[in-house]
Amino acid sequence: MDLETLLHRDIPLTRELGLTVQSWAAGRLALGLPLAPNVNHKHTLFGGSLYCGAVLAGWGWLHLALLEAGEHGGHIVIQDGHIQYPLPVRGDALAICEAPAPALWQRFLTTWRRHGRARIELATYLVEAGQSEPAVRFTGQYVLHR
Amino acid sequence: MDLETLLHRDIPLTRELGLTVQSWAAGRLALGLPLAPNVNHKHTLFGGSLYCGAVLAGWGWLHLALLEAGEHGGHIVIQDGHIQYPLPVRGDALAICEAPAPALWQRFLTTWRRHGRARIELATYLVEAGQSEPAVRFTGQYVLHR
Repeated sequence: MDLETLLHRDIPLTRELGLTVQSWAAGRLALGLPLAPNVNHKHTLFGGSLYCGAVLAGWGWLHLALLEAGEHGGHIVIQDGHIQYPLPVRGDALAICEAPAPALWQRFLTTWRRHGRARIELATYLVEAGQSEPAVRFTGQYVLHR
Repeated sequence: MDLETLLHRDIPLTRELGLTVQSWAAGRLALGLPLAPNVNHKHTLFGGSLYCGAVLAGWGWLHLALLEAGEHGGHIVIQDGHIQYPLPVRGDALAICEAPAPALWQRFLTTWRRHGRARIELATYLVEAGQSEPAVRFTGQYVLHR
């Protein structure tokens, strides 16, 4: 099952958010978050929706990277999140997660295989479509457990 | 216009979240966040929805406290949020914001009246209905500007 179908099935609110999977390549996941269903009265993207995009980019990245590493059956839980909103978002947005440092990822996989539980910090960000400057920066602590 | 009507009008996603205003008394705001529209496949409340409840409890508290202080016409923006998820939420939740220390509030009002811009940190939390232990703890930096 592809990630978009999985998200829409397992977290029904993602359908209301209009969340889509835009691309997954070279260790980089991009989710689409449209303005219309997430707009506020200032015609910008609601901060709570931006958080949902940010946290799901990290969740989705971890889900896909684990499958590529041959790991199945773990449960991913968000434990802690920190979000900053340097710029308003006045159009559709992309929520992006890029791979963490290879050494961090290897340590995470080793801990998981040895103990059945591991934690990793992932950084994600959102950009308004057509812009380059991140409008939102997020770091999340994700726990994988059996 | 009451806060619930205002939220549902200005941030349409709050209708999809099923967000309600439960009480506003003695400087304490409680919002209701039902499980059903915010559920995930583990039958717990989605972490992104919990963030929405937490950030809106602070936003709503500030909106109502400003009205009670006779202040109208400012715009409230969230600048930074930090959320922790110590417990899963397996039922409907309440998102609660209580008044900050009186000295902090007075300093915020003074800065706002003098400069037309002020920032305040508000702490909110979520509890599962019928439980006493917070399942989510949140602190947000809110900016009020003209």
